[in-house]
Amino acid sequence: MFAGSTASLTVLGAPDLIVLTLSEFADQARRICRAVKTLPLLVDADHGYGNALNAMRTVEELETAGVAAMTLEDTVLPRPYGDGKVTLISLEEGLGKVRAALAARDDPAFCIVARTGAVSVTGLADAVERTRAYTESGADAIFYTGIRTRAELDAVSAVATIPIIVGGVEGTEIKDRDYLAARGVRVALQGHQPIMAAVQAVHATLKALRDGTPPSELQGLPQGGLMGRATREADYKRWTREFLGGA
Amino acid sequence: MFAGSTASLTVLGAPDLIVLTLSEFADQARRICRAVKTLPLLVDADHGYGNALNAMRTVEELETAGVAAMTLEDTVLPRPYGDGKVTLISLEEGLGKVRAALAARDDPAFCIVARTGAVSVTGLADAVERTRAYTESGADAIFYTGIRTRAELDAVSAVATIPIIVGGVEGTEIKDRDYLAARGVRVALQGHQPIMAAVQAVHATLKALRDGTPPSELQGLPQGGLMGRATREADYKRWTREFLGGA
Amino acid sequence: MFAGSTASLTVLGAPDLIVLTLSEFADQARRICRAVKTLPLLVDADHGYGNALNAMRTVEELETAGVAAMTLEDTVLPRPYGDGKVTLISLEEGLGKVRAALAARDDPAFCIVARTGAVSVTGLADAVERTRAYTESGADAIFYTGIRTRAELDAVSAVATIPIIVGGVEGTEIKDRDYLAARGVRVALQGHQPIMAAVQAVHATLKALRDGTPPSELQGLPQGGLMGRATREADYKRWTREFLGGA
Amino acid sequence: MFAGSTASLTVLGAPDLIVLTLSEFADQARRICRAVKTLPLLVDADHGYGNALNAMRTVEELETAGVAAMTLEDTVLPRPYGDGKVTLISLEEGLGKVRAALAARDDPAFCIVARTGAVSVTGLADAVERTRAYTESGADAIFYTGIRTRAELDAVSAVATIPIIVGGVEGTEIKDRDYLAARGVRVALQGHQPIMAAVQAVHATLKALRDGTPPSELQGLPQGGLMGRATREADYKRWTREFLGGA
Repeated sequence: MFAGSTASLTVLGAPDLIVLTLSEFADQARRICRAVKTLPLLVDADHGYGNALNAMRTVEELETAGVAAMTLEDTVLPRPYGDGKVTLISLEEGLGKVRAALAARDDPAFCIVARTGAVSVTGLADAVERTRAYTESGADAIFYTGIRTRAELDAVSAVATIPIIVGGVEGTEIKDRDYLAARGVRVALQGHQPIMAAVQAVHATLKALRDGTPPSELQGLPQGGLMGRATREADYKRWTREFLGGA
Repeated sequence: MFAGSTASLTVLGAPDLIVLTLSEFADQARRICRAVKTLPLLVDADHGYGNALNAMRTVEELETAGVAAMTLEDTVLPRPYGDGKVTLISLEEGLGKVRAALAARDDPAFCIVARTGAVSVTGLADAVERTRAYTESGADAIFYTGIRTRAELDAVSAVATIPIIVGGVEGTEIKDRDYLAARGVRVALQGHQPIMAAVQAVHATLKALRDGTPPSELQGLPQGGLMGRATREADYKRWTREFLGGA
Repeated sequence: MFAGSTASLTVLGAPDLIVLTLSEFADQARRICRAVKTLPLLVDADHGYGNALNAMRTVEELETAGVAAMTLEDTVLPRPYGDGKVTLISLEEGLGKVRAALAARDDPAFCIVARTGAVSVTGLADAVERTRAYTESGADAIFYTGIRTRAELDAVSAVATIPIIVGGVEGTEIKDRDYLAARGVRVALQGHQPIMAAVQAVHATLKALRDGTPPSELQGLPQGGLMGRATREADYKRWTREFLGGA
Repeated sequence: MFAGSTASLTVLGAPDLIVLTLSEFADQARRICRAVKTLPLLVDADHGYGNALNAMRTVEELETAGVAAMTLEDTVLPRPYGDGKVTLISLEEGLGKVRAALAARDDPAFCIVARTGAVSVTGLADAVERTRAYTESGADAIFYTGIRTRAELDAVSAVATIPIIVGGVEGTEIKDRDYLAARGVRVALQGHQPIMAAVQAVHATLKALRDGTPPSELQGLPQGGLMGRATREADYKRWTREFLGGA
């Protein structure tokens, strides 16, 4: 799962404020897919980077990048001028974007995941109505943010006939995996800790070096050939031998 | 310092085999410069990505990216077909590339650092001769890889009238900082541990999550506002308040 | 002048519907600036590709690309869901974007041109009010679309103390150059015919080839060394001679 | 057919000297494929942008860009330091690159075309030997530059069991299409006149505007809806109507 906030952090060093462009997001997704050819990548494509026509381009760019599935949310983004309260686009407009995204894909295996924060923004009734509409539009899955209670998940999953994705469930009453599975949830995201751990590790290592720690005494470095596996060293050695006259 | 191996790792997940393109390298350098506007960035531009004309493009792209200084080495790259033994281009060709790089810059403050591995590849006498030639050509600094002894550094520094950069000195007899400074060394690189620590941190965190560790119990995550400082959160809040009607 | 419609055409082959991303626009601007180092490039940056924070990124990307000046307009873009009627953002929001753009530049010589279609969308009184506000904000110039009469230009130019840019004036009563100059107009755009002529030429040439015309009998090809001048052939020959051992 | 010289001209405004990077070439190929989804694109990938490992990346990038076929030549590129005489890499090295390219593709329908200038550089006997070797390696087609006589084409086509591509044949004794077809030639390139006609058209139009021609009196502009067809205007109108609430 490649989150929008992770993208903004790794490409720009910026917070999750939709200042990243579609091109930058797709390029980073491409870099990930190129490195991990056999694992499907799910990406958070925010609001499709504009209106329905932009959502079509988003599908085109991400499909070319090698992505397996993208989420498309119905929040008004980027933050509009004014008080900054989170609002949703109308169901009609959201449906237009989902249908545009579905029409724009070349590969029917590329998944369009409708995403809505309706549960916490406009209320459960609206979330149910959007679930029904997105499901009928042909979306391949539905992603809910803001669900905290079993009552909420019960209500939306009762009308969703497609796989469900939920955001962070830790600390809520829906965290039980068997319960989630029984309600049709197939992916429960856990957050963006891996990239945050990388930030901490880089910071700690640079600080130790600046404070005089000799490189050979640094902590937290990879062991046992991890770097070689991460960079596909064995493949490159084989290719060098086979195609470049190597010994 | 942005190393070629770090670039290959972060952009491609590949080992340091010059499979990264100049465009990819310059784009990543741009991403770094954009995030750290006030710190000068020194980059390893390998062999200038081809012949002297390509070296000119390398200067143009890296200067536009916001880089402060680049090294340009005289190793034959990428690995030629055959046994894989490291060799150097002729001094004449190397000089042509350094002179081309100097001619290609728009901003005289952009530094061209001649880099040579002659000490360990073609011998000390050649290293001294290359030092003299690169210095006279107008290179702003000289970068040596492969220096292990004081005799070697004494010999080349005796003819170098420009600042010197050296690679990893740990475990060698030239590691003393006062000695290095006395010989004109202004930068002594220490290796690429920070990015390696990031690889380890991502791997350990993903593994812990897969093994069932709840997100809130993960180790090695940033504390005390590090993420906010890394993403310039305060700046974005101020801009939102000043330009976007925020409270 | 690099127009948004020209950008969309050359990069995407798409109409002028803001489906191009900021990254794609800035990359193309960079390609232009790289080729014509000594000519200043004015670009149409549409609405700054989002809200005020996105406008700041737009400035940053275009300044890095080597652009001399950019226009920033107060139209609601991309086309919102619904009837497609052109509307403007509020003056307050437009001012926020202009002020954000001014704050985002590193080089005070980079020009921010406020652009408004108020004359034909919200009326002359609003155009005058926006002129006054943008001028006071510190914008370097102001660009009007939709001005057709002398009364309109007289009214806005009476309060604009900065240089004025106008769109196509052919066929209107403001086409007289002396009149335009007297009103503070410094640039009067004429349209996008050069790139349209290229489309026609490519189409006609491909068609002639398909219809069996031998290459040597094609019409409309460059004569007298134009290709050499367009590709800086003489510079590359000189560099080859000086830096690459050429004869 | 997307030629290397055309790429260098359109992206950099530079002559055909391999100063374009693989990334820039692949990006431009991507822009072409995105605009013409249903037409297969053949591209000139020069020498694979380096050694056999770089040739593998070339395949990967161009396949992702949506290209249908690429040529891979055995000329020493970019121009080496010295007198500038054109030379070829050894057959052994050339074979390594072709085999690497074949191994790097994901889609077996992506075509690898071996290209050789041996006929005019190293002689007909070497051209025949390279033809046999490249054919046996599994290359999907073979591209000859420098063939001028029927004797030459007869000799190489006698051993080539794969489709043949030839460069410009106008003015030579092999120009007859029936003869070419009988020898297994499936593509005979005609040159790069379309893009050259575009250069001439842009130049002529800019010059006319500068000389005072009113826009409405310019010659050589598209008629009869060509711009609308070139930009897929009808598709965008339909999408706007279907997905964006348009009338």
